[in-house]
Amino acid sequence: MHDVRAVHWDDVRNVLVLLDQTKLPAHEDYRACADVDAVVDSVRRLVVRGAPALGAVGAYGVAVAMNQASREGWDDARLQADILRIREARPTAVNLAWGVDRVRPLTSGGVAAVLSEAHAIVREDQAANRELSRIGADWILARVERRPVRVLTHCNTGDLATTGWGTAFGVIRELHERGEVEMVYADETRPLLQGARLTAWECKRQGIPCLVQADGAAASTILRGLVDVAIVGADRIARNGDTANKIGSVGVALACDAAGIPFVVAAPSSTVDMSTPDGSYIEIELRDGSEVTTYAGVSVAPIGSEGLNPAFDVTPARYISAVVSERAAVEPDGVTSVGALVGE
Amino acid sequence: MHDVRAVHWDDVRNVLVLLDQTKLPAHEDYRACADVDAVVDSVRRLVVRGAPALGAVGAYGVAVAMNQASREGWDDARLQADILRIREARPTAVNLAWGVDRVRPLTSGGVAAVLSEAHAIVREDQAANRELSRIGADWILARVERRPVRVLTHCNTGDLATTGWGTAFGVIRELHERGEVEMVYADETRPLLQGARLTAWECKRQGIPCLVQADGAAASTILRGLVDVAIVGADRIARNGDTANKIGSVGVALACDAAGIPFVVAAPSSTVDMSTPDGSYIEIELRDGSEVTTYAGVSVAPIGSEGLNPAFDVTPARYISAVVSERAAVEPDGVTSVGALVGE
Repeated sequence: MHDVRAVHWDDVRNVLVLLDQTKLPAHEDYRACADVDAVVDSVRRLVVRGAPALGAVGAYGVAVAMNQASREGWDDARLQADILRIREARPTAVNLAWGVDRVRPLTSGGVAAVLSEAHAIVREDQAANRELSRIGADWILARVERRPVRVLTHCNTGDLATTGWGTAFGVIRELHERGEVEMVYADETRPLLQGARLTAWECKRQGIPCLVQADGAAASTILRGLVDVAIVGADRIARNGDTANKIGSVGVALACDAAGIPFVVAAPSSTVDMSTPDGSYIEIELRDGSEVTTYAGVSVAPIGSEGLNPAFDVTPARYISAVVSERAAVEPDGVTSVGALVGE
Repeated sequence: MHDVRAVHWDDVRNVLVLLDQTKLPAHEDYRACADVDAVVDSVRRLVVRGAPALGAVGAYGVAVAMNQASREGWDDARLQADILRIREARPTAVNLAWGVDRVRPLTSGGVAAVLSEAHAIVREDQAANRELSRIGADWILARVERRPVRVLTHCNTGDLATTGWGTAFGVIRELHERGEVEMVYADETRPLLQGARLTAWECKRQGIPCLVQADGAAASTILRGLVDVAIVGADRIARNGDTANKIGSVGVALACDAAGIPFVVAAPSSTVDMSTPDGSYIEIELRDGSEVTTYAGVSVAPIGSEGLNPAFDVTPARYISAVVSERAAVEPDGVTSVGALVGE
């Protein structure tokens, strides 16, 4: 099995290379990004998605902008403006801005300095994912009695959503390596089907048993007692533990609460935004309604129908049993800070 | 605007005619059913669906079987066996068996007697829908303060799901006629998209403002305060008020409970099954997983992926604010009988 890398830097061509996730699972195509337009377009169209992966894209994107600035003779104002375009290509995941901000002070040191820091972000992300997966698996095995465990997940949080290994899906992989996964229930995750297209694909690659279900089936699968724990990733975790994640996550959390099973959020500390007091401050990206009124490229609603398409929702901390980062598992109460996730 | 009839009897051709709902909204095609195979296939493939519509199909289906028996010289055992095939073509909606059972005692009186009773079922269903819509609208306007009302619905419960007017969608139409509907949030209702395809189509026909959203968006739309009441139909209502309805309904109910807004079930009394004590006794139809892993012939999950595809879920009575039939609005407590819905 070859390695899958959602995001990497090609030293020979000196470009950012992204696995085009809009084409999976039918095609495994890669897109080389040599200019800012290509980076911004890839982020907006979800060629690359997943909060941790976007962190790396933000950092490498600065290098792409610097290379373009050299080629095209930009002044610093133009360079800074184009770096800002990358930083703001999508609003909800904090990691994109975090990745840009982390390398931006190094631009005066040249592209090599920026690339070196971007590579460090990738190494740290991979290490964080491995560590949070161990912490998450430990937490789950301490709380869930049944063996092996039946896990429900929403959206995609594996190799494809990160720079490697995964967050929520990383916890599932860790449980699988310990021989403790009976079944993964993968919500298909409309409108863009990251669950059906990407999580099912990653499960197949890892040999993890998987059933794909409509998002509307999640609550009943949970209430019927088929699931022991639900685990999702995060795009932004507020200081009180409120968590923005893919649309549909809060419905899973409500069902877990009703069924009395744990709902776990897994994310590297780069996803924690201590400057956001609670979920009400998180900007939710509203994407084009046509993503809902079409399905796999086919129009499903009557011509002229309007779609409502928020890309994320916010799960209040009171419905979250634990938030796991590479530093800690925190059981948020919605009032006190989850700072332990970032080592505070 | 021409009349839409999901189910009707063509006296000239002496056949049951069904609007093929698998082809909406792109095409408005009708299928004539002259034999039992055509009826059973139409029910299984959801050419016709919706609990009240299935009640009429059950009754007319008996007439179709009797005509076929005459043409092909069946004995009574064969006729009864084929009537049973219609009765059991789908398990969850009680109305299909109810429609068959209501006309079956009349078979000795000939096709005319059966057809006369089937026509009576249609007239009664339409009258029941009009009346339950008035009762439902009154209940909602008494409980919801905001004007006009913002309504969320799941699946399709209008003209297409009934013999005319609609149940949950009938209540919305009644509210709309009273000038009290601001917006309908229509869950797309995966896997077969009855919300995006059919409810959006009916909203357009009636001039009711509508936004189609992914099923996963329902909980967050409700929690964000964009919805005043959710209203759904039913496929079977147990004696204690537990209600089987399209997969995804219970998730809507949980979100309404969390947000403190009413969750209303609207259905004619033919949907109430007093012989079923509670939801645990309701058989849930498990449809083919390929409905989830493919769309319009296009595979959306990796080749070989398995789908889990329960067609319905059960909402416990404790999450249901009111069940409305043509006889009463009952606020179920999950323990006492909802017999008032059927005049008991």
